[in-house]
Amino acid sequence: MNPRVVILGCGFGGLFAARALARAPVEVTVVDRTNHHLFQPLLYQVATAGLAAPAIAEPIRRTLARQKNATTLYGEAQRVDVAARQVVLENGDTLAYDRLILATGAADSYFGHDEWRAHAPGLKTLEDAFRIRERILLAFEHAEREPDPVKRAPWLTFVVIGAGATGVEMAGMVAEISRHTLKGEFRRFDPRNARVVLVEGMERVLPPYAPDLSERARVQLERMGVTVWLGRQVTGIDAQGVQLGGDRLEAKTVVWCAGVAASPLGATLGTPLGRGGRVIAEPDLSVPGHPEIQVVGDLALLPDHQPPVPGVAPAAKQMGRHAARNIIATLAGRPTRPFRYRDYGQLATIGRSSAVAMFGKVHIWGWLAWVAWLTAHIYFLIGFRNRLVVLIDWAWAYWTFERAARVVDRGARPPESHG
Amino acid sequence: MNPRVVILGCGFGGLFAARALARAPVEVTVVDRTNHHLFQPLLYQVATAGLAAPAIAEPIRRTLARQKNATTLYGEAQRVDVAARQVVLENGDTLAYDRLILATGAADSYFGHDEWRAHAPGLKTLEDAFRIRERILLAFEHAEREPDPVKRAPWLTFVVIGAGATGVEMAGMVAEISRHTLKGEFRRFDPRNARVVLVEGMERVLPPYAPDLSERARVQLERMGVTVWLGRQVTGIDAQGVQLGGDRLEAKTVVWCAGVAASPLGATLGTPLGRGGRVIAEPDLSVPGHPEIQVVGDLALLPDHQPPVPGVAPAAKQMGRHAARNIIATLAGRPTRPFRYRDYGQLATIGRSSAVAMFGKVHIWGWLAWVAWLTAHIYFLIGFRNRLVVLIDWAWAYWTFERAARVVDRGARPPESHG
Repeated sequence: MNPRVVILGCGFGGLFAARALARAPVEVTVVDRTNHHLFQPLLYQVATAGLAAPAIAEPIRRTLARQKNATTLYGEAQRVDVAARQVVLENGDTLAYDRLILATGAADSYFGHDEWRAHAPGLKTLEDAFRIRERILLAFEHAEREPDPVKRAPWLTFVVIGAGATGVEMAGMVAEISRHTLKGEFRRFDPRNARVVLVEGMERVLPPYAPDLSERARVQLERMGVTVWLGRQVTGIDAQGVQLGGDRLEAKTVVWCAGVAASPLGATLGTPLGRGGRVIAEPDLSVPGHPEIQVVGDLALLPDHQPPVPGVAPAAKQMGRHAARNIIATLAGRPTRPFRYRDYGQLATIGRSSAVAMFGKVHIWGWLAWVAWLTAHIYFLIGFRNRLVVLIDWAWAYWTFERAARVVDRGARPPESHG
Repeated sequence: MNPRVVILGCGFGGLFAARALARAPVEVTVVDRTNHHLFQPLLYQVATAGLAAPAIAEPIRRTLARQKNATTLYGEAQRVDVAARQVVLENGDTLAYDRLILATGAADSYFGHDEWRAHAPGLKTLEDAFRIRERILLAFEHAEREPDPVKRAPWLTFVVIGAGATGVEMAGMVAEISRHTLKGEFRRFDPRNARVVLVEGMERVLPPYAPDLSERARVQLERMGVTVWLGRQVTGIDAQGVQLGGDRLEAKTVVWCAGVAASPLGATLGTPLGRGGRVIAEPDLSVPGHPEIQVVGDLALLPDHQPPVPGVAPAAKQMGRHAARNIIATLAGRPTRPFRYRDYGQLATIGRSSAVAMFGKVHIWGWLAWVAWLTAHIYFLIGFRNRLVVLIDWAWAYWTFERAARVVDRGARPPESHG
């Protein structure tokens, strides 16, 4: 029997590792707790009703159907038993491995304030995206039910916490929905007066970008109707709003885009963890003392890699592929190679015809950056059909300001039900 | 101030009533417990992963945005206070009316066995469709996790109860998924061996159709791999399967398409109810003793109408439009007119290139009927964009056997959790 390679998690890291093993003499088993690979860079589009979920989610089983050495298992790993070389699944089933790739990524971190989670959902999974979409759309519905303008205001205040790429995209989209999509649909208020506040603890938006692009992004956000609050620390979140030291924002809808923590699975290895609970890896992505285990994507921390590897999709893909190649090498008796991240540039969109991009020293913004962003994202969406549907949805949205997925499946509940 | 017309429910009946009032000197308020009008005839496509939800659901607010005399309210009516002429909403808010149109439709009925609901969900709302889609897709996932073929069999057995149009469509689609869509994606079993059983209490499928078409539909179903059990009464449903007198089907996935009951709102009028809890209406759709209240769609029972009005979308549309015209007539001091259903034909699809249709005495089947079905359904889907996306999804599905929406948003749970 060929060596058994188990891959935990089928995000970009896990999927690219599995594919890179397609012709290797191994038995691959991919375990994921959902049935789909998610194109996470566009998840904010589902959360803001621009795309239907299936447009950015592809069944893992379909993607790997023709890869005859790969088995897909729907399940959630609870822990890794490094001594017995097996993975324990959610129902106690075990899965033995000869080589293991950990690619379970990251989850939201509330910096020790887990009680904020209920009031300010993060955006990591489709389930998160549906929850945020529901809250945004229903906030406007509740506002239409509310005759008292003072009580209505918190329903029409949207706070996005954290001005990284996701936070900037979310804030821009909510502004676009209120300014354009919903125009003329309400009788008691004008949705264009909705307030969208983007709160960031650092002194500029998009901190990983060059300062000139941060400033351009801020200006574009303000022009779209987003109020940008920089250098402000959130000190409390409850059902009625956000506390920032002595200041308070009364808001029924708060989205958390501020912090990530590594998947808790990493801690079960028993090896040293770094910032955010990430697994400290050797330069070749293996885990110290366990050459049979490799860690990729957001879960991995490479302390010696300069500059640090960013937590973005291209990095996870490159690490996944690299881990697979190292496995092939060791099975053939060859040495492993250290991982080196190749930076092909960074792109962040802000809204309609507006984005910033950084390709090494070349900085672009506005319409040109937006076209680059659009091209890159459609190109990288896996599967021809998805790309086509996404293109149609976007072309339609661009011309009409409409959103394709303004659907809330749940029935009406009293406004108190979600705070 | 113009007379206030309140419409409860925005299915086909409510929506067509609201639109027919667009130029009338009235204030229209449409109340629905979801934010969308649902194209229910294609709901089975969402439940079987063929279409994404937004393709068949249109925000009511968007549909009515340009109708300046219409207000959309997201809410659920709890009861009608006929004496005070007001509707009481879910949070106690009241809504006064001068004219009321009740269009809240029907829900599933388990014939007094409400304990079956948890094991055999029905198909009325998007939430229902997501639940069924999740169960069907996850059944195959659990089967792949199960090493014991005996324990695996119930995961690969799908029972559809009730062989009306929805039951026939569901059974045909599940067979197509297992025979074609999932082919080659599993390592432990061949999904083509999945068992799909359609159970019907009467002696033929599609009872409202002519007997020759019922027989053609049965033959087409069997050819697609569906086992059709006729004249069989369900006597029990539990987490492990279905009991039919002395016989038992061990099945983890059961779908209920067997019975409907009227929305409970009708009972709050205090007027006589007919079969299935429907409100007995006068020939002009008004409620006995309450000319200011009209009832349309699945909630209405017209005892004198021969043949009986079927519970289909065209009937609800016609009734909605008729109720609106009667309101316009009474406001102008003209008499109301009795409702008369116009039957333009009935269509039911079975699967790939297969359907039956009845236009008066003309009966067609097979490919020709399927094209008629496809044309009619795309034509009637509201909104240009939806039609286009649906067409693309279907054209793609037809050529590739793929399904566009094979997404389950929830994380893995032990198999016991649903069943």
